Amino acid sequence: MTQLEFAQRNIITPLMVKVAQAEGVKPQELARLIRLGQAVIPLNINHKIKKPCAVGKGLSTKVNANIGTSTDESQIKGEIQKLKIAIKYGADALMDLSVGGNLIRMRKEVLKHSSIPVGTVPVYEIAVRAYNRCRNFLKFDAQDVLEVLTEQAKQGVDFFTIHSGVTLRSLAVLNRNQRLMGVVSRGGAMIASWIKYHRQENPFYSQFDRILEIARAYDVTLSLGDGLRPGSVLDATDKAQIAELKILGNLARRARNQGVQVMIEGPGHVPLDQIETNVALEKKYCGGAPFYVLGPLVTDVAAGYDHITCAIGGAIAASAGADFLCYVTPAEHLRHPSASDVREGVIASRIAAHAADLVKRKKSAILWDKKISTARRQRNWKKQIALSIDPDKAKEYRLSSKPKLSNVCTMCGKYCSIKLMEDCKKK
Amino acid sequence: MTQLEFAQRNIITPLMVKVAQAEGVKPQELARLIRLGQAVIPLNINHKIKKPCAVGKGLSTKVNANIGTSTDESQIKGEIQKLKIAIKYGADALMDLSVGGNLIRMRKEVLKHSSIPVGTVPVYEIAVRAYNRCRNFLKFDAQDVLEVLTEQAKQGVDFFTIHSGVTLRSLAVLNRNQRLMGVVSRGGAMIASWIKYHRQENPFYSQFDRILEIARAYDVTLSLGDGLRPGSVLDATDKAQIAELKILGNLARRARNQGVQVMIEGPGHVPLDQIETNVALEKKYCGGAPFYVLGPLVTDVAAGYDHITCAIGGAIAASAGADFLCYVTPAEHLRHPSASDVREGVIASRIAAHAADLVKRKKSAILWDKKISTARRQRNWKKQIALSIDPDKAKEYRLSSKPKLSNVCTMCGKYCSIKLMEDCKKK
Repeated sequence: MTQLEFAQRNIITPLMVKVAQAEGVKPQELARLIRLGQAVIPLNINHKIKKPCAVGKGLSTKVNANIGTSTDESQIKGEIQKLKIAIKYGADALMDLSVGGNLIRMRKEVLKHSSIPVGTVPVYEIAVRAYNRCRNFLKFDAQDVLEVLTEQAKQGVDFFTIHSGVTLRSLAVLNRNQRLMGVVSRGGAMIASWIKYHRQENPFYSQFDRILEIARAYDVTLSLGDGLRPGSVLDATDKAQIAELKILGNLARRARNQGVQVMIEGPGHVPLDQIETNVALEKKYCGGAPFYVLGPLVTDVAAGYDHITCAIGGAIAASAGADFLCYVTPAEHLRHPSASDVREGVIASRIAAHAADLVKRKKSAILWDKKISTARRQRNWKKQIALSIDPDKAKEYRLSSKPKLSNVCTMCGKYCSIKLMEDCKKK
Repeated sequence: MTQLEFAQRNIITPLMVKVAQAEGVKPQELARLIRLGQAVIPLNINHKIKKPCAVGKGLSTKVNANIGTSTDESQIKGEIQKLKIAIKYGADALMDLSVGGNLIRMRKEVLKHSSIPVGTVPVYEIAVRAYNRCRNFLKFDAQDVLEVLTEQAKQGVDFFTIHSGVTLRSLAVLNRNQRLMGVVSRGGAMIASWIKYHRQENPFYSQFDRILEIARAYDVTLSLGDGLRPGSVLDATDKAQIAELKILGNLARRARNQGVQVMIEGPGHVPLDQIETNVALEKKYCGGAPFYVLGPLVTDVAAGYDHITCAIGGAIAASAGADFLCYVTPAEHLRHPSASDVREGVIASRIAAHAADLVKRKKSAILWDKKISTARRQRNWKKQIALSIDPDKAKEYRLSSKPKLSNVCTMCGKYCSIKLMEDCKKK
């Protein structure tokens, strides 16, 4: 049985208890959220990990880091290094988005080394296999889709992003309504190309019931992908995006009815003032399913710094109710990310998640701020550094610039405001 | 006459025309905003610069970069290097916050090399002079205050941050209402210490009329400092902060009545959901004066990454009506910033400013996003890089990772969604 099926039968599982404890919520409350489809625990029955987590309403905002080979960079070793960095710096989940080299071996390594849930986008492997088979990545059929999904589920993948909402109907809406950037989701573009090539409905949509059977058998959580997400702030919240979202909402209902845990992927490039609306629409159309946002990026102009545009959008989205933030690295739009890009991406999204938790879960979240500010007031550098979101960087900065007075920093030196006020009180 | 006095007499100056053109607004409209005190042009009559700017309602959001020596790091050369970097990467204004070494020479160099408006916090020089004179930075009187203000105004400083709102009354409110972090403004702490030491009212408050005379004579814009700003999200929007803000509102009215341009400094460490309220309160209490925010930082935990907490808060503040963002660098809370910290700080705040302008000035601001996304769709890498917020970084990233196919990037390689959709259309 899946965690959702247990919850539907009012059974609280050991996994729910463990995750609820980590969240500081009652297991009954978590079970209730899972039953309502407002929270998920992405964990395959075949995957053993140290740090499972729940994603959803009333829970702390989670951060996902993407890793994976590309057709240009296909070293498994380098990707496992990135996995370790992502976990070290605090990612709650990982996605293996590999499309280059040996995908099965890569995934095996990822599943083995990861202490946190692992997701994939199965259409990548399906397309790569088709290409390897007949030099055309579109030469696959429904059977190939189900085969790869089954294999990946058996292997232990915790969540699948499937682009089931890119359908004949949503693509017709896209075609009728001009857009600056078209389809910018890699999986979405593959499906759109497949539909055009085969003149058939998307197998991730037409075979949805069979996909649910696979997901249910291994308790793979479905992440319904937003293949038509806006790739420019000019395209945000347009008709194609909303048409797809409504389809995802219907599919989410079907998934829950079959006992399959489900979350919804969200945009994308979205101007700051449309983010709250995007969250509200997702919650409305998808029955309150957890919302997994890719950014949102609040402007298109910041290539090289999209971890920052993502942090701005993610903080706003999560404070408005988004549950899961997919990181974006500084490499977005420019290159395959390096290990240091991964670190920067994870930290930026964790900042966004925590800033949002200060709104959503103020009482528990603010303890961290209270502790670090107390250490700062005491000018207890060791403690302040240990409590920083990235103690390695804080320490490196501190050591790089030594003050003459050991209890201040080189920014203000002896005119440190905190020191002045302390001296002032002493007099 | 000051720009405000001209505006009060319905005279449109050549400076107003120049600045209005750069903003894409009508000179009459800018003059109206200045007359109402809702916009300022910080430019000393003794300072010639290439890129003056206006700050205020309906105008693009501006970014300020702080530079300056500290008691630990007092090399003028290094600071001038930072000035150049700040200007190169797009700061609209600079503040020289020096407290170490030869302050007069430093300021002279800054004024000479800067093509953008320059601000200072005069109490720093006043305190440093007192210290040099008698080994006690608090041994200064009202006459010393006016002397330094006059000298700096003559020298050509475009705007002064003065902490006139740290008064016997606002400090009494602070003392009555417990706070985690106390006073975290360097200038605010100096004034608070002075008040306690001398048991007299803050000279920046008691001598406000004489300060206005100096500012008026050189058209120095006053930036009324928030000496009691919160230094922790736990202290945000507390009674001391609001008590000071109300005092600043009264002083702003007095300044405008004397023809002196004025803006208001704002917090500080503020949780995401209190930012909009902070902007609304400033506009309400200060008659719509331009709001110059220091962040706001949306959490206390991100030492080493406070350019990101600042970008999140700044984007939200500016989209809600804040007009001027003071950058924060990754070095905040840890060390005197390096040149690379300055660059990162400027870019992060410019991202926030532009994300906010997409809300406040959508029509004009979105053209940039349209251009870069068009280049991205065309996979015109040269153009995309040139249009990026930091072309140097975008170029460096692009060159560091070369794809096999020249018209994609190494993230998706041949599975580039944009390329797939293009191929799809061709078929």
